[in-house]
Amino acid sequence: MPGTVEDVDAPSASDVLRRCRELVRPALVDAVGRLHPWTGEMAAYALGWSDTAGTPEPGGSEGKGVRQALALLGAEAVGADAACAVPGAVAVELVHTFSLLHDDVMDADALRRRRPAVWKAYGTGPAVLAGDALLARAVTGLAGTPGDHAAAAVRRLCDALNDLVAGQAEDLRFEHRPWDGPGAVGPEEYRSMAEGKTGALLGCALALGAVLGGAPEPTVAALDRAGRHLGLAFQAVDDILGIWGDPATTGKPVHADLRRGKKTHPVLAALAGGSRAARELGTLLASSRPTDGAAERVASLVEEAGGRAATRGEARRHLDAARDALRATPLTRTAARELDVLFAGLADRVM
Amino acid sequence: MPGTVEDVDAPSASDVLRRCRELVRPALVDAVGRLHPWTGEMAAYALGWSDTAGTPEPGGSEGKGVRQALALLGAEAVGADAACAVPGAVAVELVHTFSLLHDDVMDADALRRRRPAVWKAYGTGPAVLAGDALLARAVTGLAGTPGDHAAAAVRRLCDALNDLVAGQAEDLRFEHRPWDGPGAVGPEEYRSMAEGKTGALLGCALALGAVLGGAPEPTVAALDRAGRHLGLAFQAVDDILGIWGDPATTGKPVHADLRRGKKTHPVLAALAGGSRAARELGTLLASSRPTDGAAERVASLVEEAGGRAATRGEARRHLDAARDALRATPLTRTAARELDVLFAGLADRVM
Repeated sequence: MPGTVEDVDAPSASDVLRRCRELVRPALVDAVGRLHPWTGEMAAYALGWSDTAGTPEPGGSEGKGVRQALALLGAEAVGADAACAVPGAVAVELVHTFSLLHDDVMDADALRRRRPAVWKAYGTGPAVLAGDALLARAVTGLAGTPGDHAAAAVRRLCDALNDLVAGQAEDLRFEHRPWDGPGAVGPEEYRSMAEGKTGALLGCALALGAVLGGAPEPTVAALDRAGRHLGLAFQAVDDILGIWGDPATTGKPVHADLRRGKKTHPVLAALAGGSRAARELGTLLASSRPTDGAAERVASLVEEAGGRAATRGEARRHLDAARDALRATPLTRTAARELDVLFAGLADRVM
Repeated sequence: MPGTVEDVDAPSASDVLRRCRELVRPALVDAVGRLHPWTGEMAAYALGWSDTAGTPEPGGSEGKGVRQALALLGAEAVGADAACAVPGAVAVELVHTFSLLHDDVMDADALRRRRPAVWKAYGTGPAVLAGDALLARAVTGLAGTPGDHAAAAVRRLCDALNDLVAGQAEDLRFEHRPWDGPGAVGPEEYRSMAEGKTGALLGCALALGAVLGGAPEPTVAALDRAGRHLGLAFQAVDDILGIWGDPATTGKPVHADLRRGKKTHPVLAALAGGSRAARELGTLLASSRPTDGAAERVASLVEEAGGRAATRGEARRHLDAARDALRATPLTRTAARELDVLFAGLADRVM
């Protein structure tokens, strides 16, 4: 059986992420350097490399770089050199940054990684423009990859992009749906939204590494599936943190998702439970959007009605499915072990 | 010499555009049908196919479809069947629609083709999302083109996309530059902005048709160059209409560009003239952004200082350069004649 977290000599998730960031960094810097200087400045801010004055902020607000790591490990897992997956790693990291910029505009999220979101710092129009520039650059770089795999890689990225945008569309539409009753958001709809919004790009990252590494289609498909399950686990974890996360860790206000009336898994699962707490929760949510005091009460009722436990279960199930997909695929031992460590690290934030 | 506007049997520009729209329409409908239903509804509204209730508005507010026509004619001009260029035509039309949606957000333009812009009708977030969906779909469709030319076509589209976004960035940055003096926008900077913002996609449309039609690189490059010059002529015409256009025809308020303080060619050319009118114009512009009465006076001064004539000259020069680029290239007679008619039709709005 390829690596498990019990391996004593396995690197930690943060070791893996750091190694991958270092490998990708020069190409990512090059890609951002090809942008118009103004959009490049916004991109550098969004990536956590600099402040709004363009002054470098080394490591301050940089993302973990999960997607770029998955792309490199996807290549290594099929026996290729990580270097061949760098164009894929850059592409998924730029697409991720594009989606954060535009999602923050759509969701009116003022904070991102404890700093003002790009639209807050530079304005809505410039943030939209910077997102567009990142998206265009992502596809351009991948389309220009040397070798025979560029076309297949671009098609993969495009499919993920369509899923990502459709997932975001679903998520926005959910806000206009009732909490309960005939028009309520069902578990299947929620899963489809989360798979598009979060799973598609994680699956694409792994798959791109395998495509650029020359893997056969069944292996690519298995890695894509693993990444999609990881995304669903990741989204469940995020939903838990969006209600019960420590603002000091999440960088977002307490009960943020509840105040915004977001249809997240814990609330939907709680409402579906049918207990007394679920009924009280339904009445409370139907009456108005929770403000300070009410959000506290909503969070308690969601927990009492089993929403937190159900979502933890959902995260666990999808993490297991992601690991199963990896284990059922012939992958190199070292990369498989690092993927396993990484997968576990992403989910253990709440477990 | 391939066709000129003097040919008595030549179809009119609107005949050419209509024929091309009819050829592309089924594939464009199919592409929009693949979007998430909500983004698809916004796309159908943006394309002028329906109102905000989703009710069909046949022909009401549809664009002319210049870019899709250029793609088909690009293929026909190199001796290929127009059908092979349909994926390119769909891609450029979707990219154009994406750019209108996002540009209207960035420029806070409330009207587009005499109707509320998408962001006014659906909200800023949804308009950003619909633009993203259109962009993703554009690249996806082109990347999935059967045959050997998909990869080259995607690279062409990506290059145009980067230029388009950089041109929009320049245009937005111009608003923060002084009208006059050392930091003023020079003619070369203006041209580079306009070539990116308007020329790149028109050039790409023609080039994509040729690429999908299997043309050799020098022919593709010549068509791209012709389209870029056409774009510069087109932008000059647009700048003239943005100041002196009849609101009933342009669908925009009178003096729209002046009220917004946009750095357009007529104003920059007028200021560069150095006449008494130019100096008075400079003083007026430096004092404040023109409102109702002042905009009228600014328009008069721009005309008196030669800005309108200079921009008409700019349009004429680039139209000639576009036609010269076509004539220096071996193209089929019928398509070359139709391109010539189309080019002339796009510029004769002010000449």
